Amino acid sequence: MSTRASKRQKTDSESEPYRLIYWPGLPGRGEHIRLAFEATGTPYVDVSNATSEGVKAVLGQIDTQNQGDERNPPPLAPPVLEHGDLRISQTPNILLYLGGRLGLAPSPDQDLHGYHHVNALTLTVLDGLSNEPHDVHHPVATGLYYEDQKDEALRKAKDYRETRLPKFLDYFNRVLSGPASGGGEYLYGNKLTYADLVLFQALDGVSHAFPKRVANLRETGDYDKVFALYDRVKALEKVKAYLESDRRQKYGMGIYRHYPELDE
Amino acid sequence: MSTRASKRQKTDSESEPYRLIYWPGLPGRGEHIRLAFEATGTPYVDVSNATSEGVKAVLGQIDTQNQGDERNPPPLAPPVLEHGDLRISQTPNILLYLGGRLGLAPSPDQDLHGYHHVNALTLTVLDGLSNEPHDVHHPVATGLYYEDQKDEALRKAKDYRETRLPKFLDYFNRVLSGPASGGGEYLYGNKLTYADLVLFQALDGVSHAFPKRVANLRETGDYDKVFALYDRVKALEKVKAYLESDRRQKYGMGIYRHYPELDE
Repeated sequence: MSTRASKRQKTDSESEPYRLIYWPGLPGRGEHIRLAFEATGTPYVDVSNATSEGVKAVLGQIDTQNQGDERNPPPLAPPVLEHGDLRISQTPNILLYLGGRLGLAPSPDQDLHGYHHVNALTLTVLDGLSNEPHDVHHPVATGLYYEDQKDEALRKAKDYRETRLPKFLDYFNRVLSGPASGGGEYLYGNKLTYADLVLFQALDGVSHAFPKRVANLRETGDYDKVFALYDRVKALEKVKAYLESDRRQKYGMGIYRHYPELDE
Repeated sequence: MSTRASKRQKTDSESEPYRLIYWPGLPGRGEHIRLAFEATGTPYVDVSNATSEGVKAVLGQIDTQNQGDERNPPPLAPPVLEHGDLRISQTPNILLYLGGRLGLAPSPDQDLHGYHHVNALTLTVLDGLSNEPHDVHHPVATGLYYEDQKDEALRKAKDYRETRLPKFLDYFNRVLSGPASGGGEYLYGNKLTYADLVLFQALDGVSHAFPKRVANLRETGDYDKVFALYDRVKALEKVKAYLESDRRQKYGMGIYRHYPELDE
């Protein structure tokens, strides 16, 4: 095959398999990408969990000697999505790429408003229900053990439970109450988007980390639309089958950790 | 005018003025949006700083009673961009919208790789050189004063100076050394993109907060490509004129704060 033909073929990413490169053995940020594939029945390769490449696939990407290639800068951190000759990082960026392709968001040509709002909602879920819960158990330094920053974590956990978590739940309940949701079953446009999957997964993780607090907030009834969305996504046929499969990784020492002393 | 005609006209966002809604009197996250307009000579209205609406424009948007409209969910926080009947939040989302329109990024049709890599690079700059420096002075709770979390801030500042800041500078130096940068003058494709403007502004803010540490890191020579990019962007004719104008807000009690005890 000539170089030209080879190059043309490689650039035709759309027909290539999706390859997710993420740490093996935990849900983490990679879970948002897995759920997009699983909820739509889209074939994908979970490289570190399902192939002999294992963790080496991740380590090769984030090696400080990796300078990327002519069209792809190196990633700083996983998850990384490979699709043909495209190799991109950053969770919300990968979801932005997949959204229209998997029918989980409008393309910008179809609905420019929806395209950007699904992205904004996703960024806001990740801010408040993924990055902040991570920082609760690592408020000082990601490179230190939890035990070495436990005093700070106890203080931050109190603020997260009492102020930040209710603030974000209230916001998403408001989004679901507003007209752009199209009825309040899903965050935008009366249709499942990847923002709903991200909200489901992030709230699932927060529920693992703070089970008592989340149960108490649920009982208040102030966030009924958010918890109804959570239940609705969890019951989707393909999501339910995935969650019951051994492809679903267990929570462990990742973003969402259950330290009883940080809960109520 | 009939409702139908009115709706059609309002939906034609492209000919409408750009309106930035952000806190008045500080650069903050809004500065990334201002710089995109300023670097390209694009007319825009900096609503809170330049009109009689002032801070009320922000407060109206983030009011907990605001449920948005039929096509736009409410934002959780500023910056907010209004363009015709589009109203979107989240800094990287606004830049994604503006990038192709202002010539600061390829559109997805032109260059799908470039479109997503400029977004990913922007997300990574904001993670490491905007969100983390903010958390250095507010490691426990954004709702508490710095003075009430100073002990924790001193610990986190040490980690940021010694581990996190060099890690991010090293990463962007590597991106600038890689082939996708197209020569190392700009982060992607040998051309100024909004990711370069974001890197400039974030490094400018970090330099304000940690002047000694940044000067020492610059002197090592290990991050020459990053600092050369910083100098290059700062010297761009329109950027330079803007930075010298009174439209450029001064750093104060926002993301980038200079507390000498948190610097080296």
